[in-house]
Amino acid sequence: MGSDVIFPRSLSAPTAPSNSRGATQATLKKNSVRNGGAGGLMRTKDDECFGGETNENMDADFDFEGNLALFDKAAVFSQIDGIDGHSNRAQHQSTQGEQKSLSYRHDENILEVKPVIYRQITVPQHRGKEYCTDSGLVVPSVPYELHKRLLAAAERWGLSLERRLETVGVCSSQMALTLLGGPNRLTPKNVHQRPTVVILCGPHIQGAQGISCGRHLANHEVEVILFLPNFVKMQESVTNEVQLYSRTSSKQVASIKDLPVSPVDLVINCLDCHENPLLREQTWYQSAADWANQNRAPVLSIDPAVSGQPPTVEAKWTLSLGLPLPLTETESRVYLCDIGIPKLVFQEVGIRYHSPFGCKFVIPLHTA
Amino acid sequence: MGSDVIFPRSLSAPTAPSNSRGATQATLKKNSVRNGGAGGLMRTKDDECFGGETNENMDADFDFEGNLALFDKAAVFSQIDGIDGHSNRAQHQSTQGEQKSLSYRHDENILEVKPVIYRQITVPQHRGKEYCTDSGLVVPSVPYELHKRLLAAAERWGLSLERRLETVGVCSSQMALTLLGGPNRLTPKNVHQRPTVVILCGPHIQGAQGISCGRHLANHEVEVILFLPNFVKMQESVTNEVQLYSRTSSKQVASIKDLPVSPVDLVINCLDCHENPLLREQTWYQSAADWANQNRAPVLSIDPAVSGQPPTVEAKWTLSLGLPLPLTETESRVYLCDIGIPKLVFQEVGIRYHSPFGCKFVIPLHTA
Repeated sequence: MGSDVIFPRSLSAPTAPSNSRGATQATLKKNSVRNGGAGGLMRTKDDECFGGETNENMDADFDFEGNLALFDKAAVFSQIDGIDGHSNRAQHQSTQGEQKSLSYRHDENILEVKPVIYRQITVPQHRGKEYCTDSGLVVPSVPYELHKRLLAAAERWGLSLERRLETVGVCSSQMALTLLGGPNRLTPKNVHQRPTVVILCGPHIQGAQGISCGRHLANHEVEVILFLPNFVKMQESVTNEVQLYSRTSSKQVASIKDLPVSPVDLVINCLDCHENPLLREQTWYQSAADWANQNRAPVLSIDPAVSGQPPTVEAKWTLSLGLPLPLTETESRVYLCDIGIPKLVFQEVGIRYHSPFGCKFVIPLHTA
Repeated sequence: MGSDVIFPRSLSAPTAPSNSRGATQATLKKNSVRNGGAGGLMRTKDDECFGGETNENMDADFDFEGNLALFDKAAVFSQIDGIDGHSNRAQHQSTQGEQKSLSYRHDENILEVKPVIYRQITVPQHRGKEYCTDSGLVVPSVPYELHKRLLAAAERWGLSLERRLETVGVCSSQMALTLLGGPNRLTPKNVHQRPTVVILCGPHIQGAQGISCGRHLANHEVEVILFLPNFVKMQESVTNEVQLYSRTSSKQVASIKDLPVSPVDLVINCLDCHENPLLREQTWYQSAADWANQNRAPVLSIDPAVSGQPPTVEAKWTLSLGLPLPLTETESRVYLCDIGIPKLVFQEVGIRYHSPFGCKFVIPLHTA
């Protein structure tokens, strides 16, 4: 770098000074005086101090603009930087370097800083969408089939559906509580205006995740209304969640008619299912989606399904689990939830994974 | 309240003004002029403006201090409050009240505010210790037997041990991540100084909770070292957790010799068991406790056991689950973790419960 230093037009490289900073400033002053010395007139220091001809140029107009143009500010600054940071240090080392080889300056780092790797997660045969976190880490999306294999591998190691339902319930309710206003809204002095949340669930695992979220919200004194259609036979995971939810004494309805007409504080949408896109055709689904679109509450979609069609309910926020699916581009803000899958389980299905979560369990994602 | 208003010595109650605030200020000004009028001298407005005797008192020293003492600031302010808030309103209502009975002022609340009830949780036959939250809610402690019945009731409704292990793991790791420095410590630019956490676990449910916490910490790129003694037969909950933990590729040791000698960032203590106080006598327990006391890292105790004896490892923080046990008084700061038990399950074992958690899952408790 020392050889790259650009000197101002009228400057030559400074001779090695003993006191670098002082000498640099002196050199600069001398040179700027030389540059700006009223048409090249040069006087010695003694003349300037004791000479009697101070009025000699008083009548001639001084060309300030022209003079200013002569001064190459950028070049002088680059010279200062060069002298301070590199050329001086090089000189310093060449004179003293042999005596002590390891001497750090106050502005040098003793620890070696590794470069930050932003692409910490890689997915096999990736052709999909990519997101990035607030701190710039790249989070690729995974196709649904790979996501399914990931969850299955986790289950084989003991991260059962039950555990996952609990983690999703805790983390999504934490997100929902923040969306509702967090500590400002939920204080003991505010009991007369408890927030109301409607959770729309289908009879599948996504629905069970919603019910788990609803239980944790109800546990935190949120007014929860759970919509779940009446079916003769439900998945076991759903009935288990319903049984636990029933102990919160919060409302559960099976008909859209029983949902509030006035806008609620938040709608949580868990109507969609990854496996069965035909659900959308059913009456209960359509009436629930219509209700959500008519009620002017903001919508949070948990674990949204991928489909070629536009979403039936427009979500303001979506929460993906583990790794995002390649969702269709919408206005929705995407968040990612840590569901507790260890690194080697990701590796088992071919994903090289480092946590993008930092100290959080739910983080926002941005389209890369 | 209107009759309680105290007027300054020289003031009489103001006559009902048409424009209350303007009139009040005028009255105050007039009266303060009267109080401070240089020895009782009163002049009309016209005299003050057009009279020529402005210099009449110039020679006499004005007694500022004595004059200031005449002015009763508190009384005047109480008059202002009285006029604004109450007496004026009473007058306002008496003159206009018959015409419109329900007229609210800008500083009145239309909603009826219920008084805050700070004692929302009541425990049968309570003689134990009481804590309170940051917002002043009272949280009573429960004896271990009742706490056990509470967990058993939750399990009957489907809140299985597995689910609880996952919730405790998520919430306690969130607390530990905060204690380690949160977003300041765990950024992509800080990978060269990952925090190190040692988790000391016994072969019981408390130990399993610690392993779950360790897995979630390891998932968040914390350097975790798990100490678990070698036993031929372990509880199933412990082996399940160990299996899942093994997928994080973090270290697990069975001997104290393999633990670091230099201080780590945090020690998490899950050595104690509620059911078996005799564990303390065993060699592995004692050597682990000795190691923790010698290592100068701060200690977080999860789900600490109640015993008459002082704790073997002094904790800087303790995390209780659901409701606190009557712990022996130590220097330790007590935190409470929401483990997702619904209200009616508390009711089933005789505890009247309202969540003290607000929007949080872990809150600090203070000795009431």
